[in-house]
Amino acid sequence: MTVTENPIRNGVDTATLFATIEAVRGNNEIADFQFRATNKWVSGTHNQSTLHGFFGATQEMTHKQPFIFDADHPAVLVGQDNGPTPVEFLLHALAACLTAGIANVAAARGVNLTSVESTVEGDIDLLGILGLSDEVRNGYQQMRVSFTLRGDDPEKLRAVVEQSRKRSAVFDVLTNGVPVAIAVDAG
Amino acid sequence: MTVTENPIRNGVDTATLFATIEAVRGNNEIADFQFRATNKWVSGTHNQSTLHGFFGATQEMTHKQPFIFDADHPAVLVGQDNGPTPVEFLLHALAACLTAGIANVAAARGVNLTSVESTVEGDIDLLGILGLSDEVRNGYQQMRVSFTLRGDDPEKLRAVVEQSRKRSAVFDVLTNGVPVAIAVDAG
Repeated sequence: MTVTENPIRNGVDTATLFATIEAVRGNNEIADFQFRATNKWVSGTHNQSTLHGFFGATQEMTHKQPFIFDADHPAVLVGQDNGPTPVEFLLHALAACLTAGIANVAAARGVNLTSVESTVEGDIDLLGILGLSDEVRNGYQQMRVSFTLRGDDPEKLRAVVEQSRKRSAVFDVLTNGVPVAIAVDAG
Repeated sequence: MTVTENPIRNGVDTATLFATIEAVRGNNEIADFQFRATNKWVSGTHNQSTLHGFFGATQEMTHKQPFIFDADHPAVLVGQDNGPTPVEFLLHALAACLTAGIANVAAARGVNLTSVESTVEGDIDLLGILGLSDEVRNGYQQMRVSFTLRGDDPEKLRAVVEQSRKRSAVFDVLTNGVPVAIAVDAG
């Protein structure tokens, strides 16, 4: 099957997807992206981030609108529950990245999807962040993703998930870690 | 200064915070938490997560309301821009976790905060996820957080940020990585 026979599959514009890959192959500079969030403390454990501008494809760009998200702790963790906890956004990021990849990879391979659902769980022992144990890490001890896919042949669907995992930005960050630098202007 | 002299500082209920830490010290089981997201593919790179239930303090709990978040790619990355990209949620998670920690640590130390603002940047070279280079990683190559704090003495504020970093769940996950298991039900 050629791209022109079915340019939109699973909601993915495969013609544009392949054209984008070819454009990047011809000019690697297009692939340099920088994403940004600004965050403002509200009160207690409640704070709010805005995601709007980013750099990519050699220019400054913006999302169609600013996306604004609150984070907080629930009452059991001494907050007001004005938003999810910060660690829950990691679960969303992982599910979202793998799922977007599944849709793209399936479309590129000519595999039809009818549904993709997932649950992500993260286990955390708060003895770490509460400073009650030096042996317990602060973050999740493990994360588990369970996908349920329907569509073409099960073997093809499994292979699509595996390829998505191999090329997932969030899976890479969460499993391998990234250097994080923190600068402070205090006055 | 004792807790009872100023039980609410920076919006943090320090009396409850200290009581919670003492309760966990007395029964470590309270500290076992599990957070969860469910995600559903919409179309193309657009999908949606719900954050609602979690386990903690020895019982099943829920947020006051389900929190629902879309993720998508912008047009330049062959999406419809119905939400931020998955990797941008990592930036929000990091800013939110460090900022909540700053508020808690400052309150616990009797340090006043008047404002906490931050910008988080993540650099990513898409040659990795596009499969155009085996030498470029899929995820962020580095992340940078810039905090601007106002309130008490600058040295105290800097020390508060450093302690928050030392006890941040998201900072730990992003810098050290976590094992992630993926299960697939394809049919």
